[in-house]
Amino acid sequence: MDAMDLQYLLGMAGTVAFAVTAVLAVTPKGIDVFGALVMGLITAIGGGTIRDLILGVPVFWANDLNYIWVSLASSLVAFYGPRLMTRKYIYKSMLYIDALGVSMFAIQAAHKVRGLDFAMPLGPILLGIITAIGGGLLRDMLAGNQTLLMKKELYALPVMIGLVLYMILLRLLPGYEVFHGLVCASIIFLIRAAAIKWNFEMPKWAVATPKQSS
Amino acid sequence: MDAMDLQYLLGMAGTVAFAVTAVLAVTPKGIDVFGALVMGLITAIGGGTIRDLILGVPVFWANDLNYIWVSLASSLVAFYGPRLMTRKYIYKSMLYIDALGVSMFAIQAAHKVRGLDFAMPLGPILLGIITAIGGGLLRDMLAGNQTLLMKKELYALPVMIGLVLYMILLRLLPGYEVFHGLVCASIIFLIRAAAIKWNFEMPKWAVATPKQSS
Amino acid sequence: MDAMDLQYLLGMAGTVAFAVTAVLAVTPKGIDVFGALVMGLITAIGGGTIRDLILGVPVFWANDLNYIWVSLASSLVAFYGPRLMTRKYIYKSMLYIDALGVSMFAIQAAHKVRGLDFAMPLGPILLGIITAIGGGLLRDMLAGNQTLLMKKELYALPVMIGLVLYMILLRLLPGYEVFHGLVCASIIFLIRAAAIKWNFEMPKWAVATPKQSS
Repeated sequence: MDAMDLQYLLGMAGTVAFAVTAVLAVTPKGIDVFGALVMGLITAIGGGTIRDLILGVPVFWANDLNYIWVSLASSLVAFYGPRLMTRKYIYKSMLYIDALGVSMFAIQAAHKVRGLDFAMPLGPILLGIITAIGGGLLRDMLAGNQTLLMKKELYALPVMIGLVLYMILLRLLPGYEVFHGLVCASIIFLIRAAAIKWNFEMPKWAVATPKQSS
Repeated sequence: MDAMDLQYLLGMAGTVAFAVTAVLAVTPKGIDVFGALVMGLITAIGGGTIRDLILGVPVFWANDLNYIWVSLASSLVAFYGPRLMTRKYIYKSMLYIDALGVSMFAIQAAHKVRGLDFAMPLGPILLGIITAIGGGLLRDMLAGNQTLLMKKELYALPVMIGLVLYMILLRLLPGYEVFHGLVCASIIFLIRAAAIKWNFEMPKWAVATPKQSS
Repeated sequence: MDAMDLQYLLGMAGTVAFAVTAVLAVTPKGIDVFGALVMGLITAIGGGTIRDLILGVPVFWANDLNYIWVSLASSLVAFYGPRLMTRKYIYKSMLYIDALGVSMFAIQAAHKVRGLDFAMPLGPILLGIITAIGGGLLRDMLAGNQTLLMKKELYALPVMIGLVLYMILLRLLPGYEVFHGLVCASIIFLIRAAAIKWNFEMPKWAVATPKQSS
């Protein structure tokens, strides 16, 4: 298995995780199986689709329907599976795979955007963030849930840190793209995993105090 | 009147229905006439616009502004009309025309996507669904209403059934595209109309039981 | 300083205003600094991005990252600034700069759309409105706030008036594009500023009476 295969496999693992966490997030509200499939699909491919529209390139799933099939199958399993298994246990495991998906998708996207020389040097960072969190934002808006932008959870910040570091490393030490990508994806994953494990929240100086003014 | 004219006419009828049902859905919340026009327009052309962006082709209304004019005029009538007539009666009739619009738009979209050989064989089904329900999803998010994905109403499911059948029929019996399209659009319409008439809901096995867990 | 520079400068002023008003609108809900940056950015460049996607041209910020830098810097200042100054005073001033941004962006967009001969004569009006209010709509949906389409505030209507007038003037008196643009942007700004100053609301005949009916 070479680096290309590994990347593809991790992308699919991310797709599974995004679809499953989406379905587990909306089923408590009493959604039907069709809605769950749509939610899983939008979460899994939504971010990358927005990225490709902004880049002006064909959407990534048009020429590889595996992303769609994997997302639909995972959503179906996630919809009917929890009735047989312990929901909470699955959800916790899925959060870590979701973190893996986020880190992979972010770096993959930055790599793609760099290759197209799009809006350098900010483009890879911005579109990396959009790819990683765009599907989840669409899901939350469609489900009527609070979006992650309004939560104090450390979700998007690790992505931003990893992407900025990735661009800096490539500037300072060019030519080690695969190595830098691996390092930065790991960093994103580790910060996010630590945040899940120990319930990290944003530090106080980084959060606005809610007020009744407006 | 040939098949082309009929299709165009039904597309316009769908546009009217989408705009009118949108305006009737948001006016109870106290919207102003400008907001109503925007809501009617987004509902009527939103789904097809997302489809065309994903396909990477010019948006369908750019070269035929009739879709815009018809949508604006219908929204205006819907905004001021109900003050003169019995609202409930109109709304019920509009639901059936909306069902007609949904079925026409879904099959039209699948036909367009097939012609472009996009992401076959899933592309026509996915983009058919997006065309049929995308505008309504945008409307509900903008209005702060629960989206149809979270409701137990049979709305998107008939669309999916008709589109899957359409692709299967074209595979098994190629060459009768118009005939298959007519059959499948009728099937979508009839299931949806039956669901409106008898208040069908999704069967129990297809709905997740709401829980307080999360 | 020629007309081009002036237009660019006003575009940047609009970017500042959009980012700052966005941040001030979401901070009362207790957002963190990362979410605030994303909200400011989406509000400032969201409308123009949707416009460019529909036009099928490269997004405007891809070749001029100043829009991004200015938006990020303004959001950061807006996030930490109010702790030092009187929030209310800033917000009021920002509303007027926001009105300036809205008027500039709307006319700039119409100018761009006309130059591409897109969906004439409605295209410049529709995409002008989308450019002016699209970012704000995205922000409100992401923040879980009521969108401006559901409010009685005079926000989008002045934009529509100015854009329709712009297209009429260009038809009747062609060749004075800069002059007409200046006049119409001023009209949008003045109506909007008057609405802020004297709390204009939509007149009664233009607002649907809220009802409990479906």
